[in-house]
Amino acid sequence: MEALGQRARAASRAMARADSATRNRALSLIADAIEREAEALRAANGQDLEAARANGLAAAMVDRLTLSDKAIATMVEGLRQIVALPDPVGEISNMKTRPTGIQVGQMRVPLGVIGIIYEARPNVTVDAAGLCIKSGNATILRGGSEAIHCNRALAKIVKQGLIDAGLPEDGVQVVDTTDRAAVGALITMPQYVDVIVPRGGKGLIARLMEEATVPMIKHLDGICHVYIDAKADLQKALDIGFNAKCHRYGTCNTMETLLVERTVAPAVLPELARLYLAEKVELRADAEAFAILDAAAYPHLAQATEQDWATEYLAPILAVRIVDGIDAAMDHINTWSSKHTEAIVTEDYSAAMRFLREVDSASVMVNASTRFADGFEYGLGAEIGISNDKLHARGPVGLEGLTSLKYVVFGHGEVRK
Amino acid sequence: MEALGQRARAASRAMARADSATRNRALSLIADAIEREAEALRAANGQDLEAARANGLAAAMVDRLTLSDKAIATMVEGLRQIVALPDPVGEISNMKTRPTGIQVGQMRVPLGVIGIIYEARPNVTVDAAGLCIKSGNATILRGGSEAIHCNRALAKIVKQGLIDAGLPEDGVQVVDTTDRAAVGALITMPQYVDVIVPRGGKGLIARLMEEATVPMIKHLDGICHVYIDAKADLQKALDIGFNAKCHRYGTCNTMETLLVERTVAPAVLPELARLYLAEKVELRADAEAFAILDAAAYPHLAQATEQDWATEYLAPILAVRIVDGIDAAMDHINTWSSKHTEAIVTEDYSAAMRFLREVDSASVMVNASTRFADGFEYGLGAEIGISNDKLHARGPVGLEGLTSLKYVVFGHGEVRK
Repeated sequence: MEALGQRARAASRAMARADSATRNRALSLIADAIEREAEALRAANGQDLEAARANGLAAAMVDRLTLSDKAIATMVEGLRQIVALPDPVGEISNMKTRPTGIQVGQMRVPLGVIGIIYEARPNVTVDAAGLCIKSGNATILRGGSEAIHCNRALAKIVKQGLIDAGLPEDGVQVVDTTDRAAVGALITMPQYVDVIVPRGGKGLIARLMEEATVPMIKHLDGICHVYIDAKADLQKALDIGFNAKCHRYGTCNTMETLLVERTVAPAVLPELARLYLAEKVELRADAEAFAILDAAAYPHLAQATEQDWATEYLAPILAVRIVDGIDAAMDHINTWSSKHTEAIVTEDYSAAMRFLREVDSASVMVNASTRFADGFEYGLGAEIGISNDKLHARGPVGLEGLTSLKYVVFGHGEVRK
Repeated sequence: MEALGQRARAASRAMARADSATRNRALSLIADAIEREAEALRAANGQDLEAARANGLAAAMVDRLTLSDKAIATMVEGLRQIVALPDPVGEISNMKTRPTGIQVGQMRVPLGVIGIIYEARPNVTVDAAGLCIKSGNATILRGGSEAIHCNRALAKIVKQGLIDAGLPEDGVQVVDTTDRAAVGALITMPQYVDVIVPRGGKGLIARLMEEATVPMIKHLDGICHVYIDAKADLQKALDIGFNAKCHRYGTCNTMETLLVERTVAPAVLPELARLYLAEKVELRADAEAFAILDAAAYPHLAQATEQDWATEYLAPILAVRIVDGIDAAMDHINTWSSKHTEAIVTEDYSAAMRFLREVDSASVMVNASTRFADGFEYGLGAEIGISNDKLHARGPVGLEGLTSLKYVVFGHGEVRK
């Protein structure tokens, strides 16, 4: 791993130096090669799938591991979309002339070497390599051991694309071992790795947080809230309350707890419950909400416990709580939220402004579904992940999150007096 | 420390919510009180100085510990300058309407709770508290134990200022113990502390890096370079080469290694040496530079070893190396630099552009003295430190570095299709 880190550090200089056209050419060559070699990739993936079934891997994991025709087409399309994105590298901003005569501004530059640790999803290999090449970084990819054959085949294609475009072949390295110690080494080499992006479950990330000495851009869980305010528009409340829960259950920007202001609860809750009923959503309600829903004869109803406020269900289950107003709603959110995404439904200007300002989460919304919190919907083009952190990158992380701003000074011979 | 952390977290919400006028009022009240109670502060400082002398503290440390009239006036003036700075909190940028109808932008918000660990310099207590109050953060300050009496007196003034302005008294807490375990606790409470800013020597920071689980904005050393290119203007080379070394020796943005392109070395080096001679600067030269300087009869001359390339002298000593050109200069810098500040002296446009783009340091300059790398010179108003890190904040860290950008979405009832 030490040698791999040294090669990445060396390659990072050439990657950072390369112009836009060269980096885009590499991405296009890789996309073309994946398309051309789809059959060989599926054969490599077949070896992984065979081993996975022999080892009794869960069906859901086998599903994510599978490189279907559609998955291959999506990878290729993803790379071509990345080619079309503006180059983030080299942009100079905030250039100002100081009284001393020097001009000071900030230049956007690659971070250097990015380590990505992920589970058995071969598409991440290509998506992550693509974003790192585009942003002028060198990358070390460590995918789940179940996908090793497929990742090897993809690594070969990526390397050839880099070479053919005139970039260093070590610009993207796939860790070619299933040894778990490799991860331990990768996250403790700050001299070679500038940032780690873990993509995977909470368990993986908790483990990395214990051991890592390299900074991380990490995604924990999404315990997202919608607060229906006293001055909410009823139709918007129903639309957003339904969409935030039922559009997809397994995503991190799905609402897990609904907060309803007391005076509007009798009007809103039974109406919303009718919509949830069609989707068989189970409701875990606090005492007041329970009374309202019980009276409305909602069938999938249970009493909420404090544990429900802290749970990311990722399932057709929703916690419901009646609150006194915006202060109580924000207290609940700032106590229980995972700081991912929260929304208020209201027509009250001051309530909207307070919610935006005071709720301490990566995405805060007024009158919109929490499901919008992602890189494509925000216009970032593609995302390497969604950050729950406050430093560096917060919320969906696109190409900019893989860069940093250094100061640049244009002088004319100035010295400090 | 646990209770202190909880109080800071609770206070951080009120600090973030407070409007500009309230935060500025607190700063002004604190400035007035420090002025008014200067005598009591000096008395408290007297206790610290007495103990310091009894414990045989080094003269340089006693000097930094001393709260002179001038030091008090500077603290007061610093706070009033912070009042005059624009409020970074609440600024919304990049607001764009997406095809779905939602408007997405980013809002600048306080980080939350900032822990500051520093040595026996009472002025840092006030500077750091001021920057954190201005940026809407709660703060936990842990100063050197030698300054404990003075810091207690300052903490009392700061608390009263917060209370009188209507802010929570726990908005700024000074750790009132000289127990070293307090630092260990502070840097491992990510649930209560969002970022640690260590201000102190390399030893302190290396220790914190080993143990911290809270992210840090850290300042390591400043091994800064000036590269005199083949196309350098001779006068600019002399001005910058002299100023970058001799303006002040003990600062992190002082040049420690001078790189000179081979063809201009015979013209530049003896001239520069004449300027250094007046300041008795000792030169540690590689073989080629040694030959040139020896021939010019420079008296304070020694052969450089590789150790010199890695040394932050903070003294009238300068390492000198002859290089082949810009590529060799950048290789040297990217190998040996502490990634703080580097400058090129050149009239060659392409060389200047390459240096700016390819040198991977927090500040990169063309035709200007490295001594300009600081918050005041860059127009940030005041700085909490200078970051050698790449993530979040790089180079001088002002109020913006104590904030983060969260996404805000203005919707009109939109849901995800």
